[in-house]
Order: sequence, then structure tokens, then C-alpha cells
Amino acid sequence: MKKLINQVDNVVVESLKGMQAAHADLIQVHYDPHFITRAKQPAKQKVALVSGGGSGHEPLHGGFVGYGMLDAACPGDIFTSPTPDQMEAASKAVNNGAGVLHIVKNYSGDVMNFEMAAELCAAEDIAVESVVIDDDVAVQDSLYTEGRRGVGATVFAEKIVGAAAETGMDLQSVADVCRAVNANSRSMGMALTSCTVPAAGKPTFDIDDSSAEMGVGIHGEPGRERMPHKTAKEYVEIMAEAIIKDLPFKQNDKTIVMLNGMGGTPLMELYLLYNELDSLLKKHGIVVARQLVGNYITSLEMQGFSISLLKASDDHIKWWDAPVHAAGLRWGM
Amino acid sequence: MKKLINQVDNVVVESLKGMQAAHADLIQVHYDPHFITRAKQPAKQKVALVSGGGSGHEPLHGGFVGYGMLDAACPGDIFTSPTPDQMEAASKAVNNGAGVLHIVKNYSGDVMNFEMAAELCAAEDIAVESVVIDDDVAVQDSLYTEGRRGVGATVFAEKIVGAAAETGMDLQSVADVCRAVNANSRSMGMALTSCTVPAAGKPTFDIDDSSAEMGVGIHGEPGRERMPHKTAKEYVEIMAEAIIKDLPFKQNDKTIVMLNGMGGTPLMELYLLYNELDSLLKKHGIVVARQLVGNYITSLEMQGFSISLLKASDDHIKWWDAPVHAAGLRWGM
Repeated sequence: MKKLINQVDNVVVESLKGMQAAHADLIQVHYDPHFITRAKQPAKQKVALVSGGGSGHEPLHGGFVGYGMLDAACPGDIFTSPTPDQMEAASKAVNNGAGVLHIVKNYSGDVMNFEMAAELCAAEDIAVESVVIDDDVAVQDSLYTEGRRGVGATVFAEKIVGAAAETGMDLQSVADVCRAVNANSRSMGMALTSCTVPAAGKPTFDIDDSSAEMGVGIHGEPGRERMPHKTAKEYVEIMAEAIIKDLPFKQNDKTIVMLNGMGGTPLMELYLLYNELDSLLKKHGIVVARQLVGNYITSLEMQGFSISLLKASDDHIKWWDAPVHAAGLRWGM
Repeated sequence: MKKLINQVDNVVVESLKGMQAAHADLIQVHYDPHFITRAKQPAKQKVALVSGGGSGHEPLHGGFVGYGMLDAACPGDIFTSPTPDQMEAASKAVNNGAGVLHIVKNYSGDVMNFEMAAELCAAEDIAVESVVIDDDVAVQDSLYTEGRRGVGATVFAEKIVGAAAETGMDLQSVADVCRAVNANSRSMGMALTSCTVPAAGKPTFDIDDSSAEMGVGIHGEPGRERMPHKTAKEYVEIMAEAIIKDLPFKQNDKTIVMLNGMGGTPLMELYLLYNELDSLLKKHGIVVARQLVGNYITSLEMQGFSISLLKASDDHIKWWDAPVHAAGLRWGM
């Protein structure tokens, strides 16, 4: 295993320190328990958005803390759920009286720990709503999950719900926006290579030089099928068709589209894949209202990509376009 | 070789098509000869900035076309210089009477072809100034270069000179700003893995699981030394010390710092490396005025990183902070 690290046990903390040093204008990292808040608390009362999950998916979630997106993020160890005390501490730190929304990717550990955190918050009279994101069409259950896994829709939710929360909406309404984003989003991923968790010291799975893992999870969980390596066009077809028929997305539907790299894929290939996706969506008469191409929810150095589609309302698009100022996503300011 | 592509011969064009589809608000891709311009030409007369080089380093250069940065970029084949006719066509397209600055990374092919393009432009009465970027302290000459290679300082130059050009400065002054940025910048890179050029079909160099290439070039050119794999802290020390003593950077110097991923390095590791770099610079009393951590000048899927430092004047910092709206760099708008 070759990694650009010092000690396996310190990777998350040292990475958080670097993030703090790089983005002191945007974020404040808190330690023991670890969580990330905005450098400046919102000027006015608003629902606070808290998310979190295992580390190794950067920029998710810490890179999405900032104006117009999250108020706090809780990083667990690599591919390991954060603990309820992290979530409770983060929720307390950012609650300013309007309550807290927990955005939870559907992995058993995350769900269980966020449930416990919500109970701890309730005991302290902090109003909490939780929304579980479960947009991955690849598999029904997996190593880490009952039901569908939560993947790319998390990025849609954090951006769109973040913008909605900035408008001063109440907690129930903000949670409803989040549920609608999740309900109208579908995703699927694939990998050419595994990633290596530093503490494990070896690749999460073995894959030869002529195969791909179709439907892979963001922790390298097995997908639908180990298949012979194909062209970019064929991969996009398999994944996009599975996504489209699942919701289903229909002709003239307006969508927000994400073509996401898994961390080790050259940007040049992501654009090439997006070209295929754009053509395929046009063929279906599906309208691409907005799009994002890059690394947003990753799996360490895994080579591969995922596609996420949101059937977007006009409000979704308005909130998507609203200003955001986070380390991993920035526009309008 | 597993790549997310269709045909080896079409990678660059299909990637450009995807870039166009993803960023129609920002850029216009032109074909035969290939070059990228801003979607909207500047409203007022200004010096036009044109850069270019081999593809495979994305977001450089096409991702830096937009308000506050480049006016045009010429993408060559992967790791292959663009041709003089691309550069000439791009220069003609964006010249609006104030002349054109060519920002050229120091690789023999790029330098030769930009020189020919400048002559072609001169024959058409387009005023051209050229600045060659040569900031890599790793080696004096290399496979592709006489003298030092041009690497990360190109990002500093395109941002800072881009902002200066937006103020309406004349061509000589804009070129002088670019020369000053180059003269005050130093960089060095390393790699844990090779990249694979699609047309070659095999890794550019072989490297085992216990070694690193110190001082690697952005095409996988050999560096200073093949060394046993080390810690993040040790890599940063080797590279940053070589950079610091070269200019030299001194106590109380204000700097703009880039910790750049080579394309296949997890963001988590880049932040961890930045933590080491930030500590080391503090130890030297060098002031980090601004910093950038992420993938800005890459080598396909190579795992590794580079460090770039600019000894920055107050004007450099002012221009660094000025609004930029490009696919690969965006703030202030």
C-alpha cells in the first residue's frame, strides 16, 4: 500500500487539520468529538443542516459546509459511521432555535447513530428532523445497508435544501424539501479499480485488468455484476437506462444531472462520459436544466464514476442556482 | 489498460464535446483546428490571454477559460503540443485590438509551436507577446524540455495575469506581470504511480509498490530520484525545502501556495499533505497569504502531488482575489 499519509491512525485528524488550514475563511473544525461548522454562524435564525458519514468521500460532507449548504458535518473514520456524540455536539453547536435537519445517507451505522443522536438532541429540547437518502438503484440491500444505499442525491439534497433553509423556511418545510429531493433522485455507480482503506492496507476488492464492477457502492461494496470492460458509451447506457426506468424519468422532465468521479478518474474521462450522458438524455427527450461534472462524492482513489439524476421542480432549480460558498462547491459569491 | 473512453483516437474530441455540454454558459469549443474560447467575448477592449498544451492535464488549460482568466486555450493530443494553426486561430478569434499574450509552458514542442504561431500572428498584424513558464526546480533538462519545465506556476500566471488583463492594462504591462509571476514562482512534484496515455496503452513508467518518483514531470518524465516510499511529512519536506532554497523564499515573504493533486490522489490526502506544508512554511516564517488545494494541473490518473509557491506582491494578491468564473476555478461571482 502506497498512500500519501503519515500514520494510519491519524489520517482523518491530519486531513481535518489541513482542511482547516486551507479554508479558515469558511470552516471551523472542532475536535473530540470531531465536527466541522461554518467559520461564521448564520446572521439570522434558520434551520441548521447537519450531515455526516464515514470519511474518504471528500469533498462530501465537510467540503459542503458553508453558506447555502450545510451548517455542520460529522466525519467518521474512513468508511465508518460517525458516532452519536459527534452528531449531538454538531447539532447543539449549530442549532439557533429553528431546529436541526439531519441528512443521513442510508447505511445501517449512519442511520442507527443519527437516530441515537436525534434522541439525545430531543432530551435537550432541540427539535430534529431526519431524512434518509436512498437513491442508489444498483442493489436493494448490500453489505452496509438495508434498502437502497444513499449516494449522489446527497449532493443534490445538501445544495438544494441548504438554499431553501437560507430563506428562513421552518423545520418541517425544510425536511419536506429534502424528502422531495430524495424521492425524485436516482443514482448508480461503477468502478474500474478498487480503493484501499489505509487501516486495511489492501484493496477492498480484487478486480482484474479486463473487468469492471457495475453498480459498485461508495465503499467498494459489490454491485450488480462483475462485467467485461466496456466502452464509455456502453457504461453510460447501462447506468443511465437503469436510472431512467426506475423513477421513471420521462420525456420533457427537467433534471439536474451529476456525472461524478469516484476520486481517481481523470477529469478528461469525466467530460467524455458526460458527453455520452448528455446525448443519451437528449435521445430520451429529458431536459438537462443544470449539470455538475467532477469529484463530489468519492471513494478515496477509486477509478470509476456515478450518474445521478434529479427530476427537478422550478423551486429545485431556483435553489440549485442560489449562491453557495463551500470548499467543494462555490458559485454566486 | 482500462480507461473510461470509447476509441483511443477520439478521446480529446469527445472530452471537448462533454466539456462544451457541461459548460455552455462559460465556453465555446471550436473544432478543426481545436480551441476553446469564452462563451461571451469581453465587453471592452482588453489584452487577450491564450494558453495551451497537451491534453491530459485538466482542468488546465480549458478549465481556466472564462472571465478573469484565459480568453482561449488550445488543447493538443494527450501530452502532445498543440499545433501553430490552433494557436493562430485562437489568437485571431480572441484578439480585439489590444494584442494577445501567449502563456507557454516550457516544453520544447510548445515553445516551438507558439513561436511559429506568434510569427503567423505578426504576419496578420496581431501584436503578440509570449511568456515561457519554467518553475519546476526538480531537474534542469528533461525528456521534453531544455531548461526547467513549466508546471504549477502556470495556474498562478493564468489567474493573476487574467485579472490584471481585465483591468485594461496594455500588452507590455500584462506580459511584465506574467514574467514577474513566473520569476517569483517555484514548483516540484512527485508520483506514487504512473499514468497511462491511451494511445500508448501501457503505463508511461514502471514503479513498484515500495517506491516513489521524486521530482516527476507532468507527463511522467523522470525526476530527481527514484526513492523508497516515505511519509507525507517527508515528501513535503523534500519538495518544499528544495523550492524554498531555490528562489529563495525568506522569512516574512508573503506567498500564494498551491498543493496540487496529479489526478488520482484522494482529496483527503491532499488536505493531509497541505497540513504538513502549512506547518513547514510557518516554521520558516513564510507567510501564506492565499492557498489552493485540489486538482489543477494533472497527469491523467497519476497518484502524486506537487507544491507551488509564489512570492506574491500586494498586486498579485489583489489580482488573485479578483473575481474569476471558469469551469476549473470560480470565486467572487
